[in-house]
Amino acid sequence: MEETSNALVIFGGTGDLTKRKLVPALYNLKIEKLLSKEFFIISVGRREKSTEEFIEEMKLAVKEFSRTGFDEDIWVCLSERIYYYQLDFSGTDTYLEFENYLCNLEHKYNTKGNRLFYLAVSPEYFGIIVEKLHKYGLANENGGFKRVVIEKPFGRNLESARKLSKQITHTFGEENIYRIDHYLGKEMLQNIMVMRFANTFFEPIWNNKYIDNIQINSTETLGVSERGGYYEKSGALRDMLQNHLLQLLALTAMEPPARLDTESVRDEKVKVFKGLKIYSDEEVTQNVVRGQYDTSVNGEYVAYRDELRTANDSETETFIALKVEVENYRWEGVPFYIRTGKRMKKKSIEVIIQFKSLGKSLYLNELNESVPNQLIIRIQPTEGIYLRFNTKKPGQENAAIPVSMDFCQNCEIGYKSPEAYEKLLRDAMLGEKALFTRWDEVEYSWKFIDAIGKAWANNIPDFPNYKANSYGPKAADDLIRRDGREWWNE
Amino acid sequence: MEETSNALVIFGGTGDLTKRKLVPALYNLKIEKLLSKEFFIISVGRREKSTEEFIEEMKLAVKEFSRTGFDEDIWVCLSERIYYYQLDFSGTDTYLEFENYLCNLEHKYNTKGNRLFYLAVSPEYFGIIVEKLHKYGLANENGGFKRVVIEKPFGRNLESARKLSKQITHTFGEENIYRIDHYLGKEMLQNIMVMRFANTFFEPIWNNKYIDNIQINSTETLGVSERGGYYEKSGALRDMLQNHLLQLLALTAMEPPARLDTESVRDEKVKVFKGLKIYSDEEVTQNVVRGQYDTSVNGEYVAYRDELRTANDSETETFIALKVEVENYRWEGVPFYIRTGKRMKKKSIEVIIQFKSLGKSLYLNELNESVPNQLIIRIQPTEGIYLRFNTKKPGQENAAIPVSMDFCQNCEIGYKSPEAYEKLLRDAMLGEKALFTRWDEVEYSWKFIDAIGKAWANNIPDFPNYKANSYGPKAADDLIRRDGREWWNE
Repeated sequence: MEETSNALVIFGGTGDLTKRKLVPALYNLKIEKLLSKEFFIISVGRREKSTEEFIEEMKLAVKEFSRTGFDEDIWVCLSERIYYYQLDFSGTDTYLEFENYLCNLEHKYNTKGNRLFYLAVSPEYFGIIVEKLHKYGLANENGGFKRVVIEKPFGRNLESARKLSKQITHTFGEENIYRIDHYLGKEMLQNIMVMRFANTFFEPIWNNKYIDNIQINSTETLGVSERGGYYEKSGALRDMLQNHLLQLLALTAMEPPARLDTESVRDEKVKVFKGLKIYSDEEVTQNVVRGQYDTSVNGEYVAYRDELRTANDSETETFIALKVEVENYRWEGVPFYIRTGKRMKKKSIEVIIQFKSLGKSLYLNELNESVPNQLIIRIQPTEGIYLRFNTKKPGQENAAIPVSMDFCQNCEIGYKSPEAYEKLLRDAMLGEKALFTRWDEVEYSWKFIDAIGKAWANNIPDFPNYKANSYGPKAADDLIRRDGREWWNE
Repeated sequence: MEETSNALVIFGGTGDLTKRKLVPALYNLKIEKLLSKEFFIISVGRREKSTEEFIEEMKLAVKEFSRTGFDEDIWVCLSERIYYYQLDFSGTDTYLEFENYLCNLEHKYNTKGNRLFYLAVSPEYFGIIVEKLHKYGLANENGGFKRVVIEKPFGRNLESARKLSKQITHTFGEENIYRIDHYLGKEMLQNIMVMRFANTFFEPIWNNKYIDNIQINSTETLGVSERGGYYEKSGALRDMLQNHLLQLLALTAMEPPARLDTESVRDEKVKVFKGLKIYSDEEVTQNVVRGQYDTSVNGEYVAYRDELRTANDSETETFIALKVEVENYRWEGVPFYIRTGKRMKKKSIEVIIQFKSLGKSLYLNELNESVPNQLIIRIQPTEGIYLRFNTKKPGQENAAIPVSMDFCQNCEIGYKSPEAYEKLLRDAMLGEKALFTRWDEVEYSWKFIDAIGKAWANNIPDFPNYKANSYGPKAADDLIRRDGREWWNE
């Protein structure tokens, strides 16, 4: 097993992400023996806190969020390498002191100057922190590598993303920027390429000759909970569509790469983004539906506008459904329907491939219909593959009947697939960039998103427009029904 | 539900087929309410026996062989319509008396002169019985239909088959001849066409661009048991290959028919038979392996030559394995490997579609191999579909791993699919000929079989050459290994 040697510096170490994802992921990497001995973690936060206090908090977090439970010995091994450092992100001299602190630990753990900075902070700090790291020399490549992991959203439109990118590239260079999209670390997202390109069953029929439409669903039952402050500034468009869902679309739609190396794969994803049809204002009105949740019918959930840190008249969307066209040879005429929302009836992430009907010339079901084949790639919570196909109805009739086959990857009792952050943290430490997004991916996806944001800016939405614990606003159903199709809600 | 009205006259009513298959099938049709009230059965045999005795025997047979168990009330309803008639098949006046007997029952049950003759006798009687039915007017179409169902083998080579066909056609006309092949009545054989032509998943890849080879396996663990007398004259070539296995091949290889009507489907099967490469003597030696079972290693099974009514120096094959080429646009370059035998290690009938490997450019398994996809159509004892495909190996590796999906049609506890004979008997009564073989199907298949029979006649086989409870002679393994492939024995 390949090993690395580095410091991991997490800015925003007292935040939710560190607690729920990063530290539990590091704990499980430790169990899998995937962390080097030449390794330590500094959590950097604005709050005053001792290392001991921080470790105690993280211990509780691991107990609560680790997928494999908790083992005291493993935790001790890891926690010996965890430090907390209080820092004013916008301060000046503070960074110099921090550099000293860091250097001492680097000597202690022999990490050879390799530094991985993880920006788990609110987006408005991305630029500031990077600038300071540059100014005070913490990111200077003197000997070891200096890499930065940046959380979403990367900018809030093409213009701000460009500005941010310029700032970060100036400090780290594109080759050291790891734009994280945790969807890409999910087992089944990585599996999409394997499924498509390692199976005669799928690749030959993966095109507009055989596919009628593709649906990408990512729905949550939870509301915005305590993240209202963040969410008010992003909304579903920037929190989900610009990154996770367009990445999912790219993996589903891309051409086979020349090789599996990082740049070959990214090249193919960029080709998909280039093919996205950019909508005019009028086309946005026709093809994109936004929504915001209201209280539920029985009143057990509050409306988005009544959540913590949201505005009473908030225009932020918690739901988006749209029809996307990928204008290329493979996909002409095949619509992609994407839907994501909070406080929906069902929690699931899945890609649904609806094949074309074979017509009525041969076998039909008992209602004289030709039921098309269907393939569902289940990403969450179930990880697996579902196939629906036709077989002969047993007995004396000569009718076709749809049956299904299921392959479930995480259904064995007690088994939980590795968390996305385990894979991604390790990849970043190893310098493996395949599952991180390249600048041009971000750039093209913003071009597509900006057209929607621009159209929306000219209209006041009619919010709230869907009940919590539902499938979203009626307009989303109308959108797909207009094409004679239905969302797959099963 | 469509109903019919007819007499069913079974020649060979005291034989094994009547007991094990036909009467239990009629009993289950009765349960399913698929028998008309205008219906009766006469079992015709050479032995002296009263109707009461025969009914008692059949009651025991139904108890033993019915797939749904036994219900006294149903049986009484059916048995009230069962009669036994003793007849010397070669006699003369006897047929006149029989005609009288039959006419009386026809009036009683109001069957309108519709007669279905079922020849469940030894092949040497086919000609004789048909001739007598003609001579004594029992097959005259005066009002009702007169149909004949003929069991395999239809002739023992092309010449004798032609002679037999002429004889039967003279009496009944081709349109009234029902050449039964009970494989065609099996649920999963009928399902092959549905699977292929009702699914986008399969039809587009069902050709030489994507398929490497197809294996057709039909193996039994039983020996010849008490059927030595019959088997000595047929052997695996005529008992299995000429009919069942070539039919299975035809359904697997055929083009989509224009419609699902009987003649359209038969036309497509005939096109496959026309495409069969007829082997020269030398090619038979290269591509066809015959075998005969010896005692098993532990001696728990006797050799074929020691079975009841077989010759001590019998040259009859109980095993055949061969490579078949279908010379047409779809299948050029795709070998079909067919294997059948008695006293084999496993009892199963299945069609195995081995897809081509996708090459080594992208995903490989941990041994750096590209594991090809596989589809197995399971006909017996399990009825279902098995798919093997590649998915990502979960965890940190980027390797493909083959996994499988199973769809089992008869795995629900207590469910047994209808027996082939139920479907076929009912079809014959309804005049539905799709699952019976047309003369030209028989003719072309004999052309292919005769080339093998002719080559074999010039060589004394080296029998016995395989152990009971094995996978057949070594030469069968050599046959497929020569092409760099293996029989699928799992």
